[in-house]
Amino acid sequence: MPERRSPARRPTMKDIARRAGVSESAVSFALNGRPGVSDITRDRVRRVAEQLGWRPSTAARALSGEGAATVGLVLARPAGTLGVDSFFLQLVSGIQEVLAERHLGLLFQIAEDIGDECAVYRRWWAEHRVDGVLVVDPRTDDPRPGLLDELGLPAVVIGGTPDERHPRLSTVWADDAAAMAALVDGLYTLGHRRIAHIAGLLELAHTERRIRTLRAEAERRGLYEVQSVPTDYSDVAGAAVTRRVLDGPGTPTALIYDNDVMAVAGVAAAVELGFSIPADVSVVAWEDSALCRLVKPWLSALSRDSVEFGRTAARELTALLDGGPARTVRVPVPALIERDSTGRPGRCAPSRYRGD
Amino acid sequence: MPERRSPARRPTMKDIARRAGVSESAVSFALNGRPGVSDITRDRVRRVAEQLGWRPSTAARALSGEGAATVGLVLARPAGTLGVDSFFLQLVSGIQEVLAERHLGLLFQIAEDIGDECAVYRRWWAEHRVDGVLVVDPRTDDPRPGLLDELGLPAVVIGGTPDERHPRLSTVWADDAAAMAALVDGLYTLGHRRIAHIAGLLELAHTERRIRTLRAEAERRGLYEVQSVPTDYSDVAGAAVTRRVLDGPGTPTALIYDNDVMAVAGVAAAVELGFSIPADVSVVAWEDSALCRLVKPWLSALSRDSVEFGRTAARELTALLDGGPARTVRVPVPALIERDSTGRPGRCAPSRYRGD
Repeated sequence: MPERRSPARRPTMKDIARRAGVSESAVSFALNGRPGVSDITRDRVRRVAEQLGWRPSTAARALSGEGAATVGLVLARPAGTLGVDSFFLQLVSGIQEVLAERHLGLLFQIAEDIGDECAVYRRWWAEHRVDGVLVVDPRTDDPRPGLLDELGLPAVVIGGTPDERHPRLSTVWADDAAAMAALVDGLYTLGHRRIAHIAGLLELAHTERRIRTLRAEAERRGLYEVQSVPTDYSDVAGAAVTRRVLDGPGTPTALIYDNDVMAVAGVAAAVELGFSIPADVSVVAWEDSALCRLVKPWLSALSRDSVEFGRTAARELTALLDGGPARTVRVPVPALIERDSTGRPGRCAPSRYRGD
Repeated sequence: MPERRSPARRPTMKDIARRAGVSESAVSFALNGRPGVSDITRDRVRRVAEQLGWRPSTAARALSGEGAATVGLVLARPAGTLGVDSFFLQLVSGIQEVLAERHLGLLFQIAEDIGDECAVYRRWWAEHRVDGVLVVDPRTDDPRPGLLDELGLPAVVIGGTPDERHPRLSTVWADDAAAMAALVDGLYTLGHRRIAHIAGLLELAHTERRIRTLRAEAERRGLYEVQSVPTDYSDVAGAAVTRRVLDGPGTPTALIYDNDVMAVAGVAAAVELGFSIPADVSVVAWEDSALCRLVKPWLSALSRDSVEFGRTAARELTALLDGGPARTVRVPVPALIERDSTGRPGRCAPSRYRGD
């Protein structure tokens, strides 16, 4: 006869005591690492606890000063713009791989804007909900590091640059400036002199880094027809800016897009205007994803390992929670995957001006 | 001289007592809703607590039996497949809108597979980490409802169909069968007789519902050249299956894709084979997103309000947490947005067989 299944019950210290043949207080001493029991008893209690699947309640741990065993992550983006995003879920996947090893939970929140995000940190802090946070999308003028410093919440800024005003925050970042410099060098070597950069949100720190580097590299080489146009990262903006920069004299021969969605939308807009890729104009997407292989020609893209980026950030946060010092860690520079959308600027003028 | 900022300190009951001019125990009575203080004192204490930004610690609330003030959500997908997803972040955004009103946190976890996901539920339950969970991607043979029933964890299944074996679980679902029936009807009216359905994962309950409905609708109309081919939802599979179904006799005149990514990849594959859209073959994507407007022609798509779907699910979960009964809620049937990829099957054979 099959055993009748009773409803699940969480194993208690009493269960452990009964099974291990010791008193409840001995179990409590043993599991809380306090003196008062022999090493042999401690070992036996721990083994039985493990066999029974006993776990300390998170609430009890938090009240006993062991922390919430939870870290927080806020994504501040208006609901309407939460569309196609190939980076974020991969980042979170890497983060959780590391958190899971430590039995840390991830409290996740979507906020409307940065003010909202700050309010979330204050609430989490007031409610002892998290032991630390992972901060994404660092900005040029960012209120979050100051707030987190003030609250004393351990934090790792993902994608920021080291900031000596907040020595208690760790930073994990990719060198976008180096990636942009290498990209401009590659395009220059191919023969490109007129480059348009369809950039992301101007208030994000990495957007500013890319724009600044592009300008410096252009000046160094005496290129005066190089421009950056900030956008909101949307496909609509990607297409609109593409139309604008391709329309008129001094048409660029290379387009750099700050994400994959804008690159795909930009290619469609360019083709519609009669441009051939890469014959008339080369295209590079900053961020590689399935999207880059969904269009013809396949897009050349700057690729990074987002899962590993997440792992690195989570490791730095657990190090902070363990009492380690704040650190700045640089992940590998994004590498250019050359596909079919980049080449020499072969024609003198785009096809539509030549009537072919 | 600017005021020197001292490090932040969480307001305590002592602070409230001092400011309100009452004893600490009066504050405790007032904030915990216990008798022993006058209504006037209670009001004053609550006002002062609000002014000071006082919040009960989550851990204290949990231990006092008020719950973890947190709900959980697990996404069981291998890290490698976490790519372009337009549905999930929008769903989460709607969920959080409702949770935020109730000051409930969302504990989020990515799991490798369904076994992993069950282990997460067990751990969360053992650690009292969550008061309830939202379950996504319901399967035809799903171990989760049984487990959640056994653990007594309140749960809302998102996308499932009502299951009387688990009367304690709520369900929020869209009627995919009705949407598929309407879609087949529309294509039939346009003149399509040969339809291929490039389906999603066979083990997902909604995939099976769509396949079953397509078959029933086809039989009802005496259509014998209608087929469903299950895939893993990837762009690679979308392209491969498209090539297979378009290659050979009895070529379908309409293709239904179970997501946007496969539809976009399928269109590229079809065009490469010499098919013109919609002249040779009509295309519909199940799931509308920016992707559908990134390709030419723009794709007709079944559209649903994913943010509202999330809101509805979260509302049902908070109702369960409030002690309400389990319910089954149906959200509106996805509606067809007709763009440029659907039309009458105008030509007798695809262009490539006619040499044009």
